Amino acid sequence: MRIGIVGLGLIGGSIALALRHAHDILGFDTDAPTRALAEERGLETVDRLDAALRADAVIVATPLAAVVPTLEAAAGRTDAVLVEVGSLKSAVAAFAERAPGGVRIVGLHPMAGSTATGLAAADPALLRGRPFLVVPTARSDERAMAVAGDLARELGGEPTVCSVEWHDRAIAMLSAVPLAVALALARAGEDVAHVAGPGFEGATRLAATPPALAEALLDGPRVKDALARFRAALDEVERGR
Amino acid sequence: MRIGIVGLGLIGGSIALALRHAHDILGFDTDAPTRALAEERGLETVDRLDAALRADAVIVATPLAAVVPTLEAAAGRTDAVLVEVGSLKSAVAAFAERAPGGVRIVGLHPMAGSTATGLAAADPALLRGRPFLVVPTARSDERAMAVAGDLARELGGEPTVCSVEWHDRAIAMLSAVPLAVALALARAGEDVAHVAGPGFEGATRLAATPPALAEALLDGPRVKDALARFRAALDEVERGR
Repeated sequence: MRIGIVGLGLIGGSIALALRHAHDILGFDTDAPTRALAEERGLETVDRLDAALRADAVIVATPLAAVVPTLEAAAGRTDAVLVEVGSLKSAVAAFAERAPGGVRIVGLHPMAGSTATGLAAADPALLRGRPFLVVPTARSDERAMAVAGDLARELGGEPTVCSVEWHDRAIAMLSAVPLAVALALARAGEDVAHVAGPGFEGATRLAATPPALAEALLDGPRVKDALARFRAALDEVERGR
Repeated sequence: MRIGIVGLGLIGGSIALALRHAHDILGFDTDAPTRALAEERGLETVDRLDAALRADAVIVATPLAAVVPTLEAAAGRTDAVLVEVGSLKSAVAAFAERAPGGVRIVGLHPMAGSTATGLAAADPALLRGRPFLVVPTARSDERAMAVAGDLARELGGEPTVCSVEWHDRAIAMLSAVPLAVALALARAGEDVAHVAGPGFEGATRLAATPPALAEALLDGPRVKDALARFRAALDEVERGR
């Protein structure tokens, strides 16, 4: 299969490195040094988005803010299934509702990552054994769903199909709340952190999340509800129940 | 130096393994299979507390609930400096106030650990490069302070002297709050944990703290204040400040 990968950061790069032995990979990134590093790591790259769209599937792995603009730019200019691997799905779902005819879009969310960023930190092992949430949109046909599921399995992941609503509720609890908690703990313990043990260090590790991603996650849907559930659970723990 | 070590679990075992090449170590544990494992790992053991007290320094590394009873049992029956390495210091400080004449007691808290327990998981590397809080009691003379500082440095740690009050306030924030938060997060996210990524997994790791230690930490002094500070910081994070 010919697979275009748009965005060669931590996740896009890890996917590209994992798939390159079994598929024709065309990697694209707007950043020229990233493309050069990709070539050094054995990936074939192209220097225009259009060239990456000449494929059977196109994986959109840009920073979150660029996912919908990239889908907009690609829609109508490719027959490829567009598989976007961002951390939030509402905006993608909304775009799919108004996308031009014939476009196929499916969401895939590998529950993997690191506070490290960029292609230099990319590693296929990041993805292996992880849950992959497959999130259909209004423009996910049978082929799109099959492509997303097959990709998840080829990457060593375990695909689970879920709705946008379920996805966003889960991510609010699994990503936004742990991030908010780590930031709060780092702030509250600032004056004693110099004598911290591995417990506190581990509990505040997510405070090193790249700021743009952190902001997007904290501003995401259902975060207020998830934080309220967390606070209620913390009250229970404190009361010893 | 001859050093008795009472309690050969994760911390006591790690200390014993780290010091055995430079000192005469006499390890004691109330659990016979633990003593057998210690011998297998190259440690000299004794099968009575009294025998471990014939030393220049005695490190008390029992479970938290046994620290004061062990100090009580040892007091008056040894000239050794008693160095206790438990996670909370108030009860030790109170005992030191009423300890028989001539007894020397000093607190030392290596900010190290793991959710693994027991001698099987003991490893000198756990201690290296970690902060060690040296906590003087009413019965810490110059020699006791020197022994505690020297031990910390020999174990590869970085000693910092602090008061019982400062220690307990720091530990409430560094150990009890991260534990409470991990337990609350595990509880609030129970229904979505099956698709969790490494962020949530890392954030809930402390929920695997051994129950007896977890209970002691959550019941420790200053925990209510520390949780209140954490909640205020979480409110700030949520409001984007």
